[in-house]
Amino acid sequence: MELKKLIFEEAAKIDEVMRLDLDELAAELDPLLIEILNYGLFSGGKRIRPFLTTSAGRLCGCTDEGIYRLATSFEYLHAATLIHDDIIDNASERRGAASVVSQYGLAEAILAGDFLHAHSMQLVSRIGGPQALTAFCRATMAIVDGEFRQLRNAAGFEQSETEYFTVVKGKTALLIGAACEIGGMYGGGDDGICSALQIFGINLGCAFQIIDDLLDYQGNSDKTGKATGNDLAEGKMTLPVIIALQRADEQDRQALLAIFADPEARARSLADVFGLIKRYQGFSSAREKAEELIDKALAALPVMESQDALKERVILKDLCTYVLNRDK
Amino acid sequence: MELKKLIFEEAAKIDEVMRLDLDELAAELDPLLIEILNYGLFSGGKRIRPFLTTSAGRLCGCTDEGIYRLATSFEYLHAATLIHDDIIDNASERRGAASVVSQYGLAEAILAGDFLHAHSMQLVSRIGGPQALTAFCRATMAIVDGEFRQLRNAAGFEQSETEYFTVVKGKTALLIGAACEIGGMYGGGDDGICSALQIFGINLGCAFQIIDDLLDYQGNSDKTGKATGNDLAEGKMTLPVIIALQRADEQDRQALLAIFADPEARARSLADVFGLIKRYQGFSSAREKAEELIDKALAALPVMESQDALKERVILKDLCTYVLNRDK
Repeated sequence: MELKKLIFEEAAKIDEVMRLDLDELAAELDPLLIEILNYGLFSGGKRIRPFLTTSAGRLCGCTDEGIYRLATSFEYLHAATLIHDDIIDNASERRGAASVVSQYGLAEAILAGDFLHAHSMQLVSRIGGPQALTAFCRATMAIVDGEFRQLRNAAGFEQSETEYFTVVKGKTALLIGAACEIGGMYGGGDDGICSALQIFGINLGCAFQIIDDLLDYQGNSDKTGKATGNDLAEGKMTLPVIIALQRADEQDRQALLAIFADPEARARSLADVFGLIKRYQGFSSAREKAEELIDKALAALPVMESQDALKERVILKDLCTYVLNRDK
Repeated sequence: MELKKLIFEEAAKIDEVMRLDLDELAAELDPLLIEILNYGLFSGGKRIRPFLTTSAGRLCGCTDEGIYRLATSFEYLHAATLIHDDIIDNASERRGAASVVSQYGLAEAILAGDFLHAHSMQLVSRIGGPQALTAFCRATMAIVDGEFRQLRNAAGFEQSETEYFTVVKGKTALLIGAACEIGGMYGGGDDGICSALQIFGINLGCAFQIIDDLLDYQGNSDKTGKATGNDLAEGKMTLPVIIALQRADEQDRQALLAIFADPEARARSLADVFGLIKRYQGFSSAREKAEELIDKALAALPVMESQDALKERVILKDLCTYVLNRDK
């Protein structure tokens, strides 16, 4: 409860910094571009990536408010990838509202994403310096690589856990890792500390994605704001299914694969797929995997001596618990 | 002739550096992504932007071969914008071959552009440092802003010369300016020299675009590799038309505007539009404007004392003449 309040307050601060930044940009940029940036950036979102940046920075001793500006670059980049993702996935909605591409058009969505991309890098370079930018670009390129691997995997439905985690790291976890690492750098953490923070973030990011996979089947759509069974409808192989496929007998395996191979079957087979995943403990094993990853994240979390650092450590631990137990 | 040979040799060097770089990337990236990068990067092109970077660097005293790696970032960014542009313009061809989007698909083209975007920034930051990255990002964001202004102008066909140059600077000239400026920085030029090099590049870039506009109406499509009248077919307001519209009597002005407002009329009115532009000296005045801009570029070109710098200055002057007189 305390953590939720903190996340909410930090998100409000990040939003304020972004709004001031956009106001400055508005003086020199095309009004439609500014409108789209506002639309894409302020459509909700818990600002978890910036939260991690500022928290990791404070863990390393940062008391400088300039870190909020650095932290916004993760939200800018995240928004850029969402805007481009919605084009790629042909998604007309995002968080219950029209996606940027369906609201403003293809050209506008591509360009707005490109702008946020460049703007985020400029911020990281200017505030975080060259080492931070290298980490940031590495994560950005990993996102693209992850998307390519996912496109390739989408062709065949038999995917190993290793392939799954390669995609998740690229698409999600490396950026979360970079948010922690770069926050640490800004806070003055040494290489060992920053690399530990990166490992913390990568494991947290992977766990986060697994919980997302679980909520897609098990969540309450009133709370998550997303329809249950969305991943199945899109034919997306997520961890619960991958685990079930590994363990299923030949008949069930073929049944699952047949459903995933056929868009119409996917649309009407949510209950069947749910049952098959459950039969082979796909949900519980995926959750165990998420718990293991959170344990790894916590084990990596640096122990610092100051009172402020100890306080921040508690917050990051609470965040881990929150990620595991979230229902939306 | 000598200059053409030099451009050719420098392009071969740039290509070699990019090939080595892609070979390194191939070790860790998805093979399809690597294939698309190769396809998008090696489809021809004179590598004028990298040429300017290395030349400006040498003008400032650079003897270090590392500048070629820095220079490739301009080609990477240029390729990224072309790949995204072809999506936006729905262009199935680029330099006589299938565009990346038509060869590989929408998702792939968006992602490959995003990758090149991030990769180019990482290179500029790593090799050129934070000041270079700031200039590079500024140019990148100006490209997006220029595209937005163009999208907006496309709605109405009455465009002022000022609006035309705002778009051209954003879409083309600022990146060429940055290529010169950042080359100068790497070569150790002081702020005054680098800013003069930027002005040189911006004026050269604007002149380059005007010649492009002229070639689209007056060029020999066997040489340019593009169909004549393409800009008209797309309803693109270029400088010769803007000048003609300013000077035309009411009847001719309305005739021109009516043609531009109707895609079918555009498709069959090349000869009429050509005649109207000629009647109001649209072509000759646009050429005069390009010549003026080249004069401005040359006036900005720093005078350095060393023999090497003098030699480089002659090359850049020759390049200006080449840009004015090119027939493709």
